[in-house]
Amino acid sequence: MLERNLYVALIHYPVMNKNDQPIGSALTTIDLHDIARASITFGVKGFYVVTPYKDQATLATQVIDHWTKGVGGKLNPDRKNALELIRVAETFEDAVNEMKKERNEPVVTIATSAKKAIGSITTKELRLKLENKASHVLVFGTAWGLADELIDTCDFILDPILGNTDYNHLSVRSAASIYLDRIINDR
Amino acid sequence: MLERNLYVALIHYPVMNKNDQPIGSALTTIDLHDIARASITFGVKGFYVVTPYKDQATLATQVIDHWTKGVGGKLNPDRKNALELIRVAETFEDAVNEMKKERNEPVVTIATSAKKAIGSITTKELRLKLENKASHVLVFGTAWGLADELIDTCDFILDPILGNTDYNHLSVRSAASIYLDRIINDR
Repeated sequence: MLERNLYVALIHYPVMNKNDQPIGSALTTIDLHDIARASITFGVKGFYVVTPYKDQATLATQVIDHWTKGVGGKLNPDRKNALELIRVAETFEDAVNEMKKERNEPVVTIATSAKKAIGSITTKELRLKLENKASHVLVFGTAWGLADELIDTCDFILDPILGNTDYNHLSVRSAASIYLDRIINDR
Repeated sequence: MLERNLYVALIHYPVMNKNDQPIGSALTTIDLHDIARASITFGVKGFYVVTPYKDQATLATQVIDHWTKGVGGKLNPDRKNALELIRVAETFEDAVNEMKKERNEPVVTIATSAKKAIGSITTKELRLKLENKASHVLVFGTAWGLADELIDTCDFILDPILGNTDYNHLSVRSAASIYLDRIINDR
């Protein structure tokens, strides 16, 4: 069970805007649903939603509570199971510290990007790394992607997802789903 | 270029509700964005949004026009390029007839489902079929998935996407993204 030590984090700060400037982004609530559903499908241990903004953290908590404790979960137990994977953290560092505590093991951080970076690794190479005892977190950026200042703190960066065209603007929901399928199904 | 003859259709009727009854579903506008972005990434020729409801067709057209002809496309040309792939059709039959006309070739229809069906094919098998001259359309259901009455009219049905757990409730946005990656990247 490789995925026993795999986490996902969705970053809302620091990310880039379309003018290539670092910003903080607002929550997109469908990200929580789609990435939680993909996470539970592929056996991810926990899905961290990272935002430093109190109102956005409150919104995330309201969505999660509706589906895990409120009427949403009664109407749709599958959704309840998925959203129970979500935790809200103020910073990526806080999220990593929580993972460390949960499994009492080091955490390997893996950034994702739509741009090819020097030294980036394939999903097959990442899969091999999952066999060691550390926890691993796949890090996704909202808006126009993770800011370099966060990518630079990560241990690895994954190859971008390429299709057969020049277009490289998948939604973060699509990108997370494809990466998890590739990693867990060894594709 | 295998994808030269690949289309995607997103069905809003007939689909299933959670009580296993056939229904018509409302549009989820983020489906248009996410599946259009995945479609253009993987070289899909056209993305048909199928709804028999006039108000839902109008909503789809408004979203498409905003991003392809309105201010949305000026602010985000990448989104414009993606949403230009979308066409709205009243029935799946109408969509297939339009594809036939566009390429003047037969259209092979391939249903998708979260449930394993007898005789379902793998994405690798589908990839081989793409090498012939016909057009091919991957058919996705909204709500709780395609109704049998539509699946039964399709030529093939694809294996469901499995993770490494029992959970099989991916969003249609995630499922479409993963299938396209598997088919086009030969995974």
